[in-house]
Amino acid sequence: MAASVLLMSMSVDGYIAGPNDAPGNPGGDGFMRLHEWYKTADGDFGRPDGPAADIWDELNATGAVLVGRRTAEQVDWYGGDHHGVPIFVLSRQPAPEAAQKYETVTFVSDVESAMAQAKAAAGDKDVLVHGAYTAQKALEAGVLDELQIDQVPVLFGHGMRLFDVLPNQIELEVARVIDTPAATHIRYRVRH
Amino acid sequence: MAASVLLMSMSVDGYIAGPNDAPGNPGGDGFMRLHEWYKTADGDFGRPDGPAADIWDELNATGAVLVGRRTAEQVDWYGGDHHGVPIFVLSRQPAPEAAQKYETVTFVSDVESAMAQAKAAAGDKDVLVHGAYTAQKALEAGVLDELQIDQVPVLFGHGMRLFDVLPNQIELEVARVIDTPAATHIRYRVRH
Repeated sequence: MAASVLLMSMSVDGYIAGPNDAPGNPGGDGFMRLHEWYKTADGDFGRPDGPAADIWDELNATGAVLVGRRTAEQVDWYGGDHHGVPIFVLSRQPAPEAAQKYETVTFVSDVESAMAQAKAAAGDKDVLVHGAYTAQKALEAGVLDELQIDQVPVLFGHGMRLFDVLPNQIELEVARVIDTPAATHIRYRVRH
Repeated sequence: MAASVLLMSMSVDGYIAGPNDAPGNPGGDGFMRLHEWYKTADGDFGRPDGPAADIWDELNATGAVLVGRRTAEQVDWYGGDHHGVPIFVLSRQPAPEAAQKYETVTFVSDVESAMAQAKAAAGDKDVLVHGAYTAQKALEAGVLDELQIDQVPVLFGHGMRLFDVLPNQIELEVARVIDTPAATHIRYRVRH
């Protein structure tokens, strides 16, 4: 069955963005450090060599994206194109004009409805979930199935955490570990 | 060369103790969930079966312990016996009477001196470091060499974090990953 899968790169101390995260400085200071694991041999960002390529391929095989407004806005709504699939933005506010011009971008105000729409759009493919706030809301609502955490060997010290405070303890199951020097890629299943 | 090695069990969201951590409730609510990985086949705490046994053996091969006062106090200073090696307690306060009775327990007020004494006592063996505050102080002072993080597949939601806020970004190197269902055991080297 198709799953909703959170995909996030995280430092060992739990940060997914550096300090001073804002439009114009997406992800904050030092953000790219968390994403070096998918640099190609040429130093560009893209499909990495080695076993982490599986994660890249899985990302590109998802059938819809559910993303937080803050994350999406910082990258101009992906220009309306996130590997060619429908994009659902979790937002309590209506879509700003900049987002309305993209037919592929749909704003939804509650996470259950957003996930239901994303799953319907994805069909038998997985839904890619992105963003710290969205992850927490999806976990709280019980609509997140898996977490793909790409844990980068660095202590950030400051910034924005992937998991700040959750209302309940949530049990996970280790589904897969991909061990590379650039990151420890751990896939967890949420025990519902 | 002998190394100083932080050993801590941590949830995926970075907690090493649950809420309501206090003497009488060491490690807070749900603390034992983080330590199930070293249950034996009989359900007792001890040397685990499988590849995680290496971590248990490494712990028992260390030649000194450097631990934070808060952590040590909650377990009555290990009754003066932590696998038979000298115990150094990082504390800005002098030793309370309860700790003074143990000849193996030495109080030291600054982390550089505490680590120097622990390394001297350990000789050619590693120093086991324990406690969140002590870990942060040792990282800040540049006297922590390695981190053995036993990452347990659970989101705690609340409690005490291993890494709260650090003054600087610190680069690590993945030295070893032991992948078991009970925990993902990652050993990092600090890049000094």
